[in-house]
Amino acid sequence: METDRYQRGLDIMNEITVTDNKEIGTHSDIIAAFKDIAPDLESYIVEFAFGDIYSREGTTPQQKTIATIASLVALGTEPQLELHINVGITIGLTPKEIVGTVVHLIPYTGFPKVLNALKIVKKVFAQRNVEVTNQEMQPQQ
Amino acid sequence: METDRYQRGLDIMNEITVTDNKEIGTHSDIIAAFKDIAPDLESYIVEFAFGDIYSREGTTPQQKTIATIASLVALGTEPQLELHINVGITIGLTPKEIVGTVVHLIPYTGFPKVLNALKIVKKVFAQRNVEVTNQEMQPQQ
Amino acid sequence: METDRYQRGLDIMNEITVTDNKEIGTHSDIIAAFKDIAPDLESYIVEFAFGDIYSREGTTPQQKTIATIASLVALGTEPQLELHINVGITIGLTPKEIVGTVVHLIPYTGFPKVLNALKIVKKVFAQRNVEVTNQEMQPQQ
Amino acid sequence: METDRYQRGLDIMNEITVTDNKEIGTHSDIIAAFKDIAPDLESYIVEFAFGDIYSREGTTPQQKTIATIASLVALGTEPQLELHINVGITIGLTPKEIVGTVVHLIPYTGFPKVLNALKIVKKVFAQRNVEVTNQEMQPQQ
Amino acid sequence: METDRYQRGLDIMNEITVTDNKEIGTHSDIIAAFKDIAPDLESYIVEFAFGDIYSREGTTPQQKTIATIASLVALGTEPQLELHINVGITIGLTPKEIVGTVVHLIPYTGFPKVLNALKIVKKVFAQRNVEVTNQEMQPQQ
Amino acid sequence: METDRYQRGLDIMNEITVTDNKEIGTHSDIIAAFKDIAPDLESYIVEFAFGDIYSREGTTPQQKTIATIASLVALGTEPQLELHINVGITIGLTPKEIVGTVVHLIPYTGFPKVLNALKIVKKVFAQRNVEVTNQEMQPQQ
Repeated sequence: METDRYQRGLDIMNEITVTDNKEIGTHSDIIAAFKDIAPDLESYIVEFAFGDIYSREGTTPQQKTIATIASLVALGTEPQLELHINVGITIGLTPKEIVGTVVHLIPYTGFPKVLNALKIVKKVFAQRNVEVTNQEMQPQQ
Repeated sequence: METDRYQRGLDIMNEITVTDNKEIGTHSDIIAAFKDIAPDLESYIVEFAFGDIYSREGTTPQQKTIATIASLVALGTEPQLELHINVGITIGLTPKEIVGTVVHLIPYTGFPKVLNALKIVKKVFAQRNVEVTNQEMQPQQ
Repeated sequence: METDRYQRGLDIMNEITVTDNKEIGTHSDIIAAFKDIAPDLESYIVEFAFGDIYSREGTTPQQKTIATIASLVALGTEPQLELHINVGITIGLTPKEIVGTVVHLIPYTGFPKVLNALKIVKKVFAQRNVEVTNQEMQPQQ
Repeated sequence: METDRYQRGLDIMNEITVTDNKEIGTHSDIIAAFKDIAPDLESYIVEFAFGDIYSREGTTPQQKTIATIASLVALGTEPQLELHINVGITIGLTPKEIVGTVVHLIPYTGFPKVLNALKIVKKVFAQRNVEVTNQEMQPQQ
Repeated sequence: METDRYQRGLDIMNEITVTDNKEIGTHSDIIAAFKDIAPDLESYIVEFAFGDIYSREGTTPQQKTIATIASLVALGTEPQLELHINVGITIGLTPKEIVGTVVHLIPYTGFPKVLNALKIVKKVFAQRNVEVTNQEMQPQQ
Repeated sequence: METDRYQRGLDIMNEITVTDNKEIGTHSDIIAAFKDIAPDLESYIVEFAFGDIYSREGTTPQQKTIATIASLVALGTEPQLELHINVGITIGLTPKEIVGTVVHLIPYTGFPKVLNALKIVKKVFAQRNVEVTNQEMQPQQ
């Protein structure tokens, strides 16, 4: 039933995108911003993207978010990358897993896409007060 | 030392790309194919891509391969996608995790890239004798 | 209700993609091909892509198909381009409108994407027995 | 004759890109901006893009602009998207047709490209004093 | 005058794309293949792409072809890449310059696009009887 | 030996990216900016991108930079394009060669990518006090 898809999607969406920091954008903000020109976007984002796709079983939220981040690095769409790196922190990816996912893509997407993505990672780490030391981020020990 | 990078890269590369099925291409085949026109490719693939990047700590082989597959779906480069879906099976991603990674990208890359990738998934599942039933691949139960 | 979305999507999908020529692929073939590994694709394609998106009012089927074709030329995803050029013929776009849409994109996507798309147009015109003369396809008269 | 191509292109270009709002960029501004470093751009834009391509018969200005907008959403090149959404308004596409063209691309290009494009649509609607209500923009009635 | 653009473009086009090997495609073949559905393509390719763009002064034919090949590697459009690697040989780029241009792009476009391009380079070297030894293709001596 | 790769890469990198204008970013700035979250980036950029790839023989620095710029125009990654147009000036590409490389790509990547790149070219010419006249930049004389 539609109601189920909407409620299921809304629950997941709020759980993974809402933070204490009101300055960080959420999917709800996007939906609100386009309510006048595209009122049906809400249904597509909440019911389809979250209610259908994000609620699929078989992959963990961490695996889903790694896949999302990797595809957004390749696409180069920065506002969405910012949003989903925030999701990564919320669902418990460590700083090393987030940076590791992005740096791992150098051989596939090349340096330019990765460097532009790392700028977004730094921005989100600052937004979320994620503090890391050069020492702990060493990739080989 | 260079020797370390080469050996470390070669070990990882062989571990994750070599299978019992000799008809399935490996990174060694690629290196051999271009040995005449680009003899230094071996160093870049073995030492850089595997010795440096794949041997980074902080993400698991499963996480690395999910990131790789997701970026290749977005790029649409099919020969490499075939290779890395093979890697996914070798390192222990389940069929549901592989299909789940690709299907999860519909909202980000759109249907065309995902459908073309799923054709490759089917091909690799056949190569590797991975048999799945409609029942077990249901995403919601 | 879900049943409505499914039925509405299926009706539109069959109306615009099914032809008399059984050798021409349809969305139903795609759904069938992936029923084992991704049984939920049917819902996403029928209910979301067709039931939600294709059934939006405010643009005509001709306008929707022009937008679809143009985006697929830019993406370079050829199997889907073949499918939607077929849709274009089915819903009544003239040969001049189909070729005109593709050629119009030269300044935006460049020649390579357009030339590769025109090969698909030729293939589909042959599949559908669309015969055109050099004379009638002149863009300026 | 060259003079014909130039005059024909200039007429179409001015007709579809010039507005009363002097703050909205036009193709003439682009040509002027690059007159020093690339003086021949004028010829390529006026004579080729407009004199040759935009003056092709067989598709209407509305169809051409829908194709242009769709390809620019897929490419993600925002300054040009802004320009051609302005063209869309000038040549008489309704707000519902413009938004409908962009939203229709969700299944093909994915949400990120579409959401970034809708931001541009909102910006241009504000520039051009296009006011819409949630009510009239409902896609299904 | 138009006649000048056409003749100038045709001269350059034939000079750089026609070879003794009749099995290797040329721009003339492309124009002929689409003469029925898009008779104006000839003008755009001969007069615009070659008569206007390729006849610009300030860069050498070698520099132009390196730029062309690099952009086609990034776009991943293989039929055009094959054509322009053929052009590279015709205008006198050495095997080392052609391979060097493609391999140089690894950090920018990533390995997948480069490896797919090197397959085309090998194919064209075979078509044109370009024989190289591992020894002479060493990038560092 | 690693030390050789690092020193060789560092020498080339500094030679082609450092300018008298401290406001112009360099690769060293990038490395420094990410030292905390990705300390190993320095090795990948200095040793791999510059020590391995940029130090390959067989193509000149001018040819390498033309290939780099062309691929970055196609990718549309603007911060890197700005950096490498700066490199182009440093290693001695003339204004006509830089603009010529970018304009030459119109038929391959389309106008939008080229126009966005030309804005970066203008910005870098201003940063580096490169002054050109409309007269000298005429492509045909």
